[in-house]
Amino acid sequence: MDSQDSNAFLERLGDYRRQTLEALQKSLPEKEPRRYLYDIVREYLDHSGKGMRPALCLATCRAFGGRTEEALNSAAAIEMLHNAFLVHDDIEDGSEFRRGNPTMHMQYGIPIAVNAGDAMQALSMRLLGKNRSTLGPKLAWQVFEEFDSMLIESLEGQAIELGWIRDNRCDISDDDYLRMILKKTCWYSFINPCRIGALIARPGDTDLDRFNSFGNYLGSAFQIQDDILNLTGSRQKYGKEISGDLYEGKRTLMLSHLFEKGSPEETQELKCFLSKPRNGKYADQIDWVRELMNTYGSIEYARSGARELRDAAEQAFFEAYQDAPESDDKAFIQQSLHYMIDRTS
Amino acid sequence: MDSQDSNAFLERLGDYRRQTLEALQKSLPEKEPRRYLYDIVREYLDHSGKGMRPALCLATCRAFGGRTEEALNSAAAIEMLHNAFLVHDDIEDGSEFRRGNPTMHMQYGIPIAVNAGDAMQALSMRLLGKNRSTLGPKLAWQVFEEFDSMLIESLEGQAIELGWIRDNRCDISDDDYLRMILKKTCWYSFINPCRIGALIARPGDTDLDRFNSFGNYLGSAFQIQDDILNLTGSRQKYGKEISGDLYEGKRTLMLSHLFEKGSPEETQELKCFLSKPRNGKYADQIDWVRELMNTYGSIEYARSGARELRDAAEQAFFEAYQDAPESDDKAFIQQSLHYMIDRTS
Repeated sequence: MDSQDSNAFLERLGDYRRQTLEALQKSLPEKEPRRYLYDIVREYLDHSGKGMRPALCLATCRAFGGRTEEALNSAAAIEMLHNAFLVHDDIEDGSEFRRGNPTMHMQYGIPIAVNAGDAMQALSMRLLGKNRSTLGPKLAWQVFEEFDSMLIESLEGQAIELGWIRDNRCDISDDDYLRMILKKTCWYSFINPCRIGALIARPGDTDLDRFNSFGNYLGSAFQIQDDILNLTGSRQKYGKEISGDLYEGKRTLMLSHLFEKGSPEETQELKCFLSKPRNGKYADQIDWVRELMNTYGSIEYARSGARELRDAAEQAFFEAYQDAPESDDKAFIQQSLHYMIDRTS
Repeated sequence: MDSQDSNAFLERLGDYRRQTLEALQKSLPEKEPRRYLYDIVREYLDHSGKGMRPALCLATCRAFGGRTEEALNSAAAIEMLHNAFLVHDDIEDGSEFRRGNPTMHMQYGIPIAVNAGDAMQALSMRLLGKNRSTLGPKLAWQVFEEFDSMLIESLEGQAIELGWIRDNRCDISDDDYLRMILKKTCWYSFINPCRIGALIARPGDTDLDRFNSFGNYLGSAFQIQDDILNLTGSRQKYGKEISGDLYEGKRTLMLSHLFEKGSPEETQELKCFLSKPRNGKYADQIDWVRELMNTYGSIEYARSGARELRDAAEQAFFEAYQDAPESDDKAFIQQSLHYMIDRTS
């Protein structure tokens, strides 16, 4: 992207983010209990991220001829659910930092954060209920069905990842990993936002599956890039603890690569390191794993995988959006490919 | 209830429970990930309780002329959500036992239990989506709206209770407590199951609020009785840790009464005791609190409150169900009053 494209892209992303956040804040009940529920949720949403998911949904809706207002409740519901996931994921992973701040459960304790996350999931469904008046009961149920399927996919993906950690699985293949992140990340972050946007724009659209490859490639490239940043990024830009994934025992392409390439002694020690709980892992061990990953080229291996997937996503983009006339929104989606994969934070 | 009534009641309750559990089990995806998601949820539902909530919904639907099949998805959704709440409540309260077994997070760890509870909340919404084919899109959305409101009420109630514990609030009045349990318990356990049953039976019914007093009185009597059993019940029958509420710092009528009646020294010590985390509380302190409650008649005070509320519920029952012709289902609901309040487990 040249800098003019990049500015236009960021401006549009900012617009969509603002509209989504407005809808989100408006959807929060203005009542008690504030202190341990609605104030916390409001504050959390205020620090919400770049808003790529709702932007994809809104831009896709507009690219296929729909209006922002028609997709806004759904886009806001997706962003609300994303935030609900983050609150519970951080508990499940034992993460201490998010967006440069302590995670919700570090600030308010696990009980209140579990409950607030539940409320955010519930509020995302409430936003879908609002579709009834904007889209009519039938189309609103179709959106509900897309949302329902993406919600369950994500929780299944999360169960797979947590199970691998619990069982200290050291035999995860690249295919296993890609299947897991399809479920954990790709559906709710990429595939369904596009599907929902297109469905709202063209209620009779029966070929929503054309977004599946696009979202799968893009989402996988994104997740791998996220895993790499977790190891190599700067804490300030990234907002999370660097190497947090290693403390949390997360399975990544880099880790699978290391298990494949390392010597028997190294992989034995790695397995033993991973079996320890978070507070039984030490900084010098983390450094050792990262050095090993450098030595064996595991990070470069993952990086090249992400690049391949990004290229595949670009091809899939043209197929998925071929029916959409050229427009700023279509261009926005194409630009988002570069933005998301080449990001450093 | 004489023993003939009681047998008929238990038989009907058993029938409704069986039908609900069948619908619940059928609603679970038959696929991976089994080990850390669907198997756990399936097992949890198998050990599910007496099923009063779905029974109330089904009986109310039938009492007003509807059919079981029309309300079954909604009744199952209510029971699924109830189980989702239990999984997360036990995490939030730090409870170790439920239904005579270790709680889910004690068995599988907090991460997997948080995620399974999320999935159960999601699956309860999926059951509501099935109403579309049985009830049509419009009525299905009306049921969704009832469900949405009961879900948020419950999470608000939970936030209030958790906030009181976190702030070690020792100034909770009876009215505060009753407002909290209206939100935490009454809506989802009593009021909305009746409202949803009646709505499905008579889609044009515009007076669903007539169930609010009934469900509020009944639910409050039920919750107070539950609090009393937590202190005085037998572990075997009750299935939870006896005095668990005191370990968890739960605010109850008994505790408020004790704060009102105790000497300044006693209430000071009580406040200090409550400020301790669970593992900083000792059995002899628990015994001391229970003796104090006996001395000041706090348990008797709560018991008499529950009795008054049960009587009020009986009056409210006649008003709420006056339009329903006499039927076995109407009799079942009336009998449930006694069953729920006079229970010992």
